[in-house]
Amino acid sequence: MTECIFCKIIKGEIPSHKIYEDEHTFAFLDIRPNNPGHTLVIPKDHFENIYTTPDEALARMMLSAKKISIAIKNSLAADGINISMNNEEAAGQIIFHTHIHVIPRYTTDGFKHFPQKSYKQGEAEEIAKKIKLEIEN
Amino acid sequence: MTECIFCKIIKGEIPSHKIYEDEHTFAFLDIRPNNPGHTLVIPKDHFENIYTTPDEALARMMLSAKKISIAIKNSLAADGINISMNNEEAAGQIIFHTHIHVIPRYTTDGFKHFPQKSYKQGEAEEIAKKIKLEIEN
Repeated sequence: MTECIFCKIIKGEIPSHKIYEDEHTFAFLDIRPNNPGHTLVIPKDHFENIYTTPDEALARMMLSAKKISIAIKNSLAADGINISMNNEEAAGQIIFHTHIHVIPRYTTDGFKHFPQKSYKQGEAEEIAKKIKLEIEN
Repeated sequence: MTECIFCKIIKGEIPSHKIYEDEHTFAFLDIRPNNPGHTLVIPKDHFENIYTTPDEALARMMLSAKKISIAIKNSLAADGINISMNNEEAAGQIIFHTHIHVIPRYTTDGFKHFPQKSYKQGEAEEIAKKIKLEIEN
């Protein structure tokens, strides 16, 4: 993907604050962080999102995210870490080269998580049945 | 962990709407979903969070999350999928048995992501240096 910003960052054609690199993954600071230290972990090969990232590449991304989570917690005295992955525009994805966000959190940062709903009587059973049927097919 | 709610769900001592199960992972509907179909993927062994989950177990969780993401997208006509993992109370973790959230998203759901900041001159370099030093040690 010659036009992909993240592919260009990996190749050094666009500068970044690199945090970590191994054979399979590359990690750098998000330029618009939720909190300072917010890091993006990407595979070196171009895949769009979780649906199309091969298992091996996806597993490698998550293991790099773990390593970086521990390092961010220790070096920046974070009180917690959010891991997140936004797949497709409706889920907040902006760059279409799959990436895992590693976000340092602090008890005082005041970030709000998504609101929670309740299931109506019988609704959860019906939803679970639909998803299971799709997995089995 | 005999007192852990998620360990009890795996053993069937507490009921759940099971979505998927394999040798290493178990997945079920979150009873307080962001959107219907919101699923939690957990390892069958008890680990607290991403810092302490062994690589193999963590990779298996992520691969199950991928499989479930595709199934949720297809069966519930989701416009996108958020993957997230809250590590420690400051990051929104409530049950201390590590879990990955698989959240269906819709263009109309109106959920807000965390606010974004900008780095001051020189700040990103300094932060990147601290994290890299920790990874290298």
